[in-house]
Amino acid sequence: MVDDVASLVAMTPETFRKERNIDARILHEVTEIDLKGRRVRVRRLDETKEWWESFDQLMIATGALPIRPEVPGADAQGIYGVNTLQSGIEVRQVVDRQGPKRAVIIGGGYIGLEMAEALVRRGLEVALVERTPQVMNTLDPDMGELVSEALMAVGVTLYREESLQGFEVGKGRLQAVVTDKRTLPADMVILGMGVRPNAALAEKAGIVLGERGAIQVDERQQTNVEGVWAAGDCVQSFHLVSRRPFYVALATVANKQGHVAGVNIGGGSAAFPGVVGTAVSKICTVEVARTGLQERELQQLGWEYVSGKIEGRTRVGYYPGGGRITVKALAEKKSGRLLGGQIVGLEGAAKRIDIFATALHAGLTVQEMGNLDLSYAPPYSPVSDPVLVAVRHVAKSI
Amino acid sequence: MVDDVASLVAMTPETFRKERNIDARILHEVTEIDLKGRRVRVRRLDETKEWWESFDQLMIATGALPIRPEVPGADAQGIYGVNTLQSGIEVRQVVDRQGPKRAVIIGGGYIGLEMAEALVRRGLEVALVERTPQVMNTLDPDMGELVSEALMAVGVTLYREESLQGFEVGKGRLQAVVTDKRTLPADMVILGMGVRPNAALAEKAGIVLGERGAIQVDERQQTNVEGVWAAGDCVQSFHLVSRRPFYVALATVANKQGHVAGVNIGGGSAAFPGVVGTAVSKICTVEVARTGLQERELQQLGWEYVSGKIEGRTRVGYYPGGGRITVKALAEKKSGRLLGGQIVGLEGAAKRIDIFATALHAGLTVQEMGNLDLSYAPPYSPVSDPVLVAVRHVAKSI
Repeated sequence: MVDDVASLVAMTPETFRKERNIDARILHEVTEIDLKGRRVRVRRLDETKEWWESFDQLMIATGALPIRPEVPGADAQGIYGVNTLQSGIEVRQVVDRQGPKRAVIIGGGYIGLEMAEALVRRGLEVALVERTPQVMNTLDPDMGELVSEALMAVGVTLYREESLQGFEVGKGRLQAVVTDKRTLPADMVILGMGVRPNAALAEKAGIVLGERGAIQVDERQQTNVEGVWAAGDCVQSFHLVSRRPFYVALATVANKQGHVAGVNIGGGSAAFPGVVGTAVSKICTVEVARTGLQERELQQLGWEYVSGKIEGRTRVGYYPGGGRITVKALAEKKSGRLLGGQIVGLEGAAKRIDIFATALHAGLTVQEMGNLDLSYAPPYSPVSDPVLVAVRHVAKSI
Repeated sequence: MVDDVASLVAMTPETFRKERNIDARILHEVTEIDLKGRRVRVRRLDETKEWWESFDQLMIATGALPIRPEVPGADAQGIYGVNTLQSGIEVRQVVDRQGPKRAVIIGGGYIGLEMAEALVRRGLEVALVERTPQVMNTLDPDMGELVSEALMAVGVTLYREESLQGFEVGKGRLQAVVTDKRTLPADMVILGMGVRPNAALAEKAGIVLGERGAIQVDERQQTNVEGVWAAGDCVQSFHLVSRRPFYVALATVANKQGHVAGVNIGGGSAAFPGVVGTAVSKICTVEVARTGLQERELQQLGWEYVSGKIEGRTRVGYYPGGGRITVKALAEKKSGRLLGGQIVGLEGAAKRIDIFATALHAGLTVQEMGNLDLSYAPPYSPVSDPVLVAVRHVAKSI
């Protein structure tokens, strides 16, 4: 647990000002972009007056907004989205001060699962409601099932294939969560329904949007308007495996895009080619990682693929510590080109996803990957790393 | 610590016989190979008689022999090589039963360092003598220095640039180690001077040897003689980065080669393209990993290269646990093609070497690697993985 909230703040406005000569104004909102006039309308959140600021180059980094359910009672006290530092602080204060006993999480994605863990650890009775048949929809169902099992093992009650109908509210406060199958009494609700690009300002100004309403940018992170740039959770990315536009809201991607935009705005030349869809999470002791395309995506693309899944251990069997690991690999049926990888396992499992991610970037086949000279010593891996065993298993079906 | 020695034995002769129908004869030695007669001369170690066994296909897997010093007193009691399970058991029994107080390790390679750690943990006073200016010669000097510091931090006394002159012996028992600079009283000595291919039998039969006297094989693991195969620590490998013959004695490589030979002997078709030189070790809490070519090798090849080294953390700074990590990357000066990577760091550091190993197989440049979609979540990595930071740093010099 992190005790000092300040340690979570990477940069303060003061640091920006002193060390980088950047006038970072917090508590200011841009309410309009005037592309023809090359200016933005600004207001201070604590004042009513608005004014125009002119620009030569404009960078849009408006991020994403949490998806909120449009159901009765959604505005009640006790319902929290967790997508900003402030909202995380609020949830923590509620747990500390009000001592809630029963929490319901809506949505089985990364935020939902990590919050489920955090609240179980704080001693709450936690239920999780997920619309689809599985949690962690970025995994294939067979791998998602392993995550469900891990959640249940730590005491989370899972309600899958149940959709949120609304909230029971008394005196403005949340009383219960209503699904299509049951009513769950709750002292607090965490919304983990994902995010959508916050691109309304750009759209209103006439900037072209793409996948899932995210801002379209080229490899240099420039929008369709010369000198107007965008990066992060508000923009559309490119998927290097599917070779199609892709929306992803992750810090790693935002960081790379922001850097590329910055270099270009500063007069340099940089490009962000795209992503392969890598993501990793930890739910109690269970490590979960994925990259590339999953079966559902491959079916939607109509690509013929083969897949294979193996179980192994993160370390040599006789070495103390370590634990089970399940590795799944997906490859193009004809060529054997790697298309994706998924990992669920105990300590030391997840970071292995980077082998798959690197291989996806390079376009390696599972046949080639079977010969990878991966590291081995008893504290780190069995002689044949589980990733090698998995790709060799898949290579047999090519 | 592993308590049960039996757990270290992967396969017993009984398992081979029962489950795989393989007549595995232990305590038998082949004393001669008759290539024309397609037969080998065999003897039981506990008998004097010898006999001939004929073969259709012959597999040579004679492994490596520890290098022993040719100095006075080298045969004294109390001097141990640690290269077989039996020799490891012997050292443990000596420590358990005789309670030695002072140990001297000769050689600062993997075996030497791992034994230094093991004996320090058992409470011995440990000194390590290394001929060259650094331990872990498969690392560049600047990275090797970090390993030296780690060794000294756990209490190992290091004597670098000292060469072994001999052993002082009393009543057949080791008394002290004599170097060109001092005499070190010792109750036990561990030899960690590396290994050499055990290829005498093959050589005597007329099979062609190569790099460092290891058996030459083709991609199928066949020697220059049709139907005679070899794999493991006794054979020469091919280095995929230098594109030159290379000798390496590691389980990962031996395993792959053995598999390839087995498939081919069984009538199938398999090839082992080669290695990129990956190795990993752990000395107390310090993780050490390397792959590709190091500066010394690049200088010998006369290749122009650039290198860069960065310091970071294995996890996000605010996340509990994790620790320092130093990552070094080497790339071809003109193209930026990755040539090698080295890592020294705390928990979670070493397995990242697999990113470099995969990139080396694929021939990625450091420029391409700077955009790798590697995994990030606070328990596993900073937002920009130290490997990304290192390759980006090197890419700036291209």
